[in-house]
Amino acid sequence: MGENVAIVGVGHTKFGVRNDVNMPELAWEAIKQALMDAGLEQKDIEYVVVSNAGGWSSEPLPAVVIAEYSGLAPKGTVRVEAACASGSAAVKLAHDIVASGHVDIAMAVGIEKMNESPTPTVVEFIGRAGNYFWEFHNFGLTFPGYYALYATAYMDKYGATEEDLCKVAVKSHYYGARNPKAQFQKEITVEKCMASRYIAWPLKLFDCSPITDGATAVIVANEKVAKELTDTPVWIAGIGHATGTSNLSKRTTFTSLEAGTLAAELAYKKAGIDMDDPTKVIDVAEVHDCFTIAEILAYEDLRFAKRGEGVKLVREEQTYIGGKIPVNLSGGLKAKGHPIGATGEGMIAELTNQLRNKVEKDRQAPIKNGYALAHNIGGTGHYAYITILSLSKPRR
Amino acid sequence: MGENVAIVGVGHTKFGVRNDVNMPELAWEAIKQALMDAGLEQKDIEYVVVSNAGGWSSEPLPAVVIAEYSGLAPKGTVRVEAACASGSAAVKLAHDIVASGHVDIAMAVGIEKMNESPTPTVVEFIGRAGNYFWEFHNFGLTFPGYYALYATAYMDKYGATEEDLCKVAVKSHYYGARNPKAQFQKEITVEKCMASRYIAWPLKLFDCSPITDGATAVIVANEKVAKELTDTPVWIAGIGHATGTSNLSKRTTFTSLEAGTLAAELAYKKAGIDMDDPTKVIDVAEVHDCFTIAEILAYEDLRFAKRGEGVKLVREEQTYIGGKIPVNLSGGLKAKGHPIGATGEGMIAELTNQLRNKVEKDRQAPIKNGYALAHNIGGTGHYAYITILSLSKPRR
Repeated sequence: MGENVAIVGVGHTKFGVRNDVNMPELAWEAIKQALMDAGLEQKDIEYVVVSNAGGWSSEPLPAVVIAEYSGLAPKGTVRVEAACASGSAAVKLAHDIVASGHVDIAMAVGIEKMNESPTPTVVEFIGRAGNYFWEFHNFGLTFPGYYALYATAYMDKYGATEEDLCKVAVKSHYYGARNPKAQFQKEITVEKCMASRYIAWPLKLFDCSPITDGATAVIVANEKVAKELTDTPVWIAGIGHATGTSNLSKRTTFTSLEAGTLAAELAYKKAGIDMDDPTKVIDVAEVHDCFTIAEILAYEDLRFAKRGEGVKLVREEQTYIGGKIPVNLSGGLKAKGHPIGATGEGMIAELTNQLRNKVEKDRQAPIKNGYALAHNIGGTGHYAYITILSLSKPRR
Repeated sequence: MGENVAIVGVGHTKFGVRNDVNMPELAWEAIKQALMDAGLEQKDIEYVVVSNAGGWSSEPLPAVVIAEYSGLAPKGTVRVEAACASGSAAVKLAHDIVASGHVDIAMAVGIEKMNESPTPTVVEFIGRAGNYFWEFHNFGLTFPGYYALYATAYMDKYGATEEDLCKVAVKSHYYGARNPKAQFQKEITVEKCMASRYIAWPLKLFDCSPITDGATAVIVANEKVAKELTDTPVWIAGIGHATGTSNLSKRTTFTSLEAGTLAAELAYKKAGIDMDDPTKVIDVAEVHDCFTIAEILAYEDLRFAKRGEGVKLVREEQTYIGGKIPVNLSGGLKAKGHPIGATGEGMIAELTNQLRNKVEKDRQAPIKNGYALAHNIGGTGHYAYITILSLSKPRR
């Protein structure tokens, strides 16, 4: 399986409305943090993968604008897009070039400035993210509408309620309130969530992740370099990836994301984790809660709960610290924010710091087995990338 | 250096105005050819990298639309953009995942349907490809304008003339006329080129590559699979990549593309090719002639000629078959066409067939040493990807 690959540095800006900086300035905030974290300089980085869904920036070549501004040029670069999973795809591609032995050190940089565009532009862009021709143009579905279909199917089949969905949001805001980098740092109640306006029934405002600006960075290195740089390399133990049909009309189920399920199986297999109960091994996870229903589907697709029992984890508060498996201690997409292209590296940066016991004490997971999992979905299960991190060097 | 990686199948649609098909249909034409060429089925492909600069398609997630339509889902996919070098970046990333040992077979698919948008949209998009804020917005430079700066600098320093530039176009059209996949299949004369209207002085209409629709595909596999599939694997012997400054105002020279020069050095080093005279080893090359001046700069950046002497190769017709090194026997971007995201895989598909002695006889290079080189530039030297192919298995 080529070289072992470890994360040696991460960066994560404050998420939110970031009109205080332009696009390359925002990226540099994250890049600088990651370089300092790794103890590296720009010249040490041999290849740069930039994740950015774009569509709203006036710069069509964000990767070269960032490479020049951040002093990373003349090293090779590329921009990647896997919708909201772009960031995890970027980490995967940076992983591959290091695993191949062709470079020692590579970087993934995630960036999105969604507030550069007026809201209708953002809403239209995201609404097209699926199949434009059939589902957006012909039926007028918006992005919350896509996930609302999943929510109603799940509620119908398993008896989940709108209150259950709101409980997911309450947890996200609980931990977001403890994360200085989160867009929303205020706790909410089920009542407040239930009283918020409908965006696409049954999803209300507090069921939806926000429009966010942010940048994130992850530096990966091979074993030799990683051991020179740090005593606590965080190894990439397994990556799984899968693609769902473009048209939701061709999906076989609306109570799970098939690509998420498949990517999880692939990632567990690569990492050598028993699929019967991955929560025995995984200490902490970040999952793609673009909407509250998505977090519940993620529990089941990841086998943290049996089919139909994801909602029980919510009711029993089993995904808070101290429960069966703590999830989204960052605040998740819901409260930390969701700057599309930066979300994946943001999950992986958060989990790297969780494994290093380096996040704020009141949201630090107990690290027992040293495994963490990032579940990152693009579109409505159009892309799925799952990344398993470990404090133990991968078995070969 | 991980696993050896070979090209085992290529596909290349007719380039031109392709209003006869929609985007996924066009992609499938190339994918089907590549699968048949390799003797593989969709289920055999383990990861798909789609190169597409986009900006004009109504589908913001082309990779998933193509994956569903072509039967490649549920395998993992991602879209990449490196401006006009997107296709070579896609091949590089497909190469990396195979070289890393994590999959046996991967595919790069290039696609662009530029004629879906009205011409002013295309011209604006390309004009932004560099640094939007400083150079497009503040100074109003268009894309031909950027390369015109290089043309005037080269003409001033080395005494090249507009007729010299036209001679490049004459060669492109000569070979394009012999390539059934080319957008333009008519020969032209220096007189006809000289009489064409100025787009950005000194560049005239016939100095410029056209707006093109097209799709291309390249399947790569590791050594074990490649040897099972074919008696003539075409090995990827070396890849070089580099990034130029976003702002042309920060370049140190206008008579070469620094990123192209650097990427060439890296690629030659990886492939073990003597940089003093690479034409001793390389039998045939495709270079990035988005404008005629760019082909001359490429000769020098690639060390096919000394600085200032690229124009001599043109005057002496040394880049026709029978000369020092045949270049752009496909017709190049100029006559074969330049569907941005598909150009890189198109170059590599062409060279794969050249090395296999499988192109039309009147444009087939004599294959002596078994090396071929693809030089693919994004923007005005913003991205550079150089890929060296070989009939001999790479030395380890």
